[in-house]
Amino acid sequence: MSSENALATAKSSADESLNGATMNHDNLLAGRARQLSAAAPAAAATHVISFDSGHAFPGVLPDLTAEADAALSQYRPETLQYAPRPGLAELRNWIAEYMRADGGCDVAVENVLVTNGAKHALELVCRLLLDPGDPIVVTAPTYFTAIPIFKSYGVEFIEVSQDSEGLCVAQLEEVLNSRSRAGLRPPKFIYDVPDFHNPTGVTMSRSRREALIALAERNRILLVEDSPYRKVRFEGDSLPSWKALNQGNSVLSLGTFSKLLAPGMRVGWVAGSPALINRMIRLKSDGGSCPLTQRMILEFCKGGRLQGHIARVQQVYREHRDCMVAAVRRELPQAAMTVPHGGYYVWLTLPEHVDGDLLAVRAHQRKVIFIPGSKFFAATSVASRKRYIRLAYSHATPQEIDEGVKILGEVYRALD
Amino acid sequence: MSSENALATAKSSADESLNGATMNHDNLLAGRARQLSAAAPAAAATHVISFDSGHAFPGVLPDLTAEADAALSQYRPETLQYAPRPGLAELRNWIAEYMRADGGCDVAVENVLVTNGAKHALELVCRLLLDPGDPIVVTAPTYFTAIPIFKSYGVEFIEVSQDSEGLCVAQLEEVLNSRSRAGLRPPKFIYDVPDFHNPTGVTMSRSRREALIALAERNRILLVEDSPYRKVRFEGDSLPSWKALNQGNSVLSLGTFSKLLAPGMRVGWVAGSPALINRMIRLKSDGGSCPLTQRMILEFCKGGRLQGHIARVQQVYREHRDCMVAAVRRELPQAAMTVPHGGYYVWLTLPEHVDGDLLAVRAHQRKVIFIPGSKFFAATSVASRKRYIRLAYSHATPQEIDEGVKILGEVYRALD
Repeated sequence: MSSENALATAKSSADESLNGATMNHDNLLAGRARQLSAAAPAAAATHVISFDSGHAFPGVLPDLTAEADAALSQYRPETLQYAPRPGLAELRNWIAEYMRADGGCDVAVENVLVTNGAKHALELVCRLLLDPGDPIVVTAPTYFTAIPIFKSYGVEFIEVSQDSEGLCVAQLEEVLNSRSRAGLRPPKFIYDVPDFHNPTGVTMSRSRREALIALAERNRILLVEDSPYRKVRFEGDSLPSWKALNQGNSVLSLGTFSKLLAPGMRVGWVAGSPALINRMIRLKSDGGSCPLTQRMILEFCKGGRLQGHIARVQQVYREHRDCMVAAVRRELPQAAMTVPHGGYYVWLTLPEHVDGDLLAVRAHQRKVIFIPGSKFFAATSVASRKRYIRLAYSHATPQEIDEGVKILGEVYRALD
Repeated sequence: MSSENALATAKSSADESLNGATMNHDNLLAGRARQLSAAAPAAAATHVISFDSGHAFPGVLPDLTAEADAALSQYRPETLQYAPRPGLAELRNWIAEYMRADGGCDVAVENVLVTNGAKHALELVCRLLLDPGDPIVVTAPTYFTAIPIFKSYGVEFIEVSQDSEGLCVAQLEEVLNSRSRAGLRPPKFIYDVPDFHNPTGVTMSRSRREALIALAERNRILLVEDSPYRKVRFEGDSLPSWKALNQGNSVLSLGTFSKLLAPGMRVGWVAGSPALINRMIRLKSDGGSCPLTQRMILEFCKGGRLQGHIARVQQVYREHRDCMVAAVRRELPQAAMTVPHGGYYVWLTLPEHVDGDLLAVRAHQRKVIFIPGSKFFAATSVASRKRYIRLAYSHATPQEIDEGVKILGEVYRALD
């Protein structure tokens, strides 16, 4: 390097350390943030047929103007002031009653913490329970939005398979026993979506539920039951929730109004033992969840609109599900699927050689978007996990579902 | 132990492990949760004169029924659907413009992340930057709600004094130099409330601001500027924010609509370099902040109501401040205080022997509540830190302020 160049380099380095405009702070990042991309997240795709996220169908979003008006006029100081940290007492009571009415869950006001949606509830559960390196159990595949949350807590994933009855409890028992023999710590909790699993659509059978709860109790492991779609059932009877089957305090149950009412409300909850709930209240340092949307929900529910609205939600998404299942059978007969009895998604198993990631890229070029199955595995993805795709039927219209799956079939047939 | 007792103990222990109802999961808690009390948090005190928290004065909360109606009718799919993770683009733009108008902050849409209030923004900053054991700088005293957030990340606190010009930058420089000589890591960031500091009410002088920014840049330390009360100024001219003085990217600036408009909206923001903001967007796993309250705020601001509302907020709290300062001078002449030029609080320094914690207990018995100064110190409190108390004048009426401070004077004189 010439002395002139060396001088220029030294000067540029001095500029960099003194000129904030070019200063880089990557060396200051926490461990959990170091792997994250600094690039701007992709903007939402427009003018596409969207099978990707669990957005609500716009036509099923209720008119909440009357509820907002009542909340902001009759309850003005409450709705514009800081809310109590655990949530509005009246809403906590309503949620407790709602859960008691759902199979007799042993839940009262002190068991309920209102959160900014169920994802925030999951985040609080992680804050309560997880130190770096802690093992947790998830299904393979599992809810893909939960994966980065868990990863940000530095967990060790223990993946357990699913079959048509849900999480394979016998396999989990073997894993727990072999870990115990090897002197490894038991997992902190078992996370699952027992009703209309995301992404697979599978609903866990009653006997599996009972076996899982007995196993967790014997091993003193907590169960984290995430059931946002529980009421979005199209046929058949509801099975008892983990929380209803476990009358003790081994289950932390996550709920939300996002799928019952509207995602934009950002109101969910976690129900569990007061000893755990009270600590989560202390860890919930956000100035309380929004009292306006809490009060609007109370007005909606107390005004008697919820039951009728749930019926409408069920009807609309049943039509979407039927349309999606028929379109897949017609346009993509190579795909195997379990027809879901509720929820927002179908999970397609493609022939072994098919690369779902590539299919997603090619479909995107044709303006049809969905999430490839590889994103739903918590541990590093392997080739054998690329043959799946998840299609959400919640957001698109039936016409878009027909058109989008037709394009998907064309893209599939054009793959090398 | 008799064999009968031993049997009973064994049985009770077996019951405990098999009966969920009595199962204790304390051994499963994360490190950050182990010190937390499992008891229910105290319910909000009723029928008291409240000088404790930074709640808004109910009479100053605006009528937002028209904004809600517009948001829920004209923008229905947007306001009830999941919001984009970074926040509504229009609101991010509005915030960027608002900051540019405030002393020329170099902020555009890509520098802004909308959060569920400023506390949530602080939480995201911690998630971005803090590993256990990381040192950070705070003033002594500092914002008491930030303390448990920082503690939950396992930080090492470096406390720096304040004087009438704000954080003592010369003292901080000495601390940084002596840490450097001792081979200790520099702090990750410096946290402070430069405008109408909470709790002390002090506003940092311009020269201190400039010296602090230069010091931070030289040492490549980030600055976290928390300025919720910035527009709640009663007299004098605004001083440039840290963000305006630092045209580079060393400052993460936390803002909120809680004090401008209504705490219940739960809308705040963090502004910083895109590299840091984009990573915080990825760490913000809450399904997006509430689009309804974001849109209501946009309607309020775009409708031209904000300026008039800020003027009213300033007028109301100026009256409260004047009333509080006069009452303290009249009823508690033993207390020293800096008259704040804005914000919600006065900080009283009592004679050396006085125990502010005891004063708070005795005042509570007389139905006057406030937060003793010892709660505002991040490091373990020592006796010399007990002589302070913080009185919020935001929430109480002028009549309550007169009455409450009179009682405080009586309680003070009755202390042993």
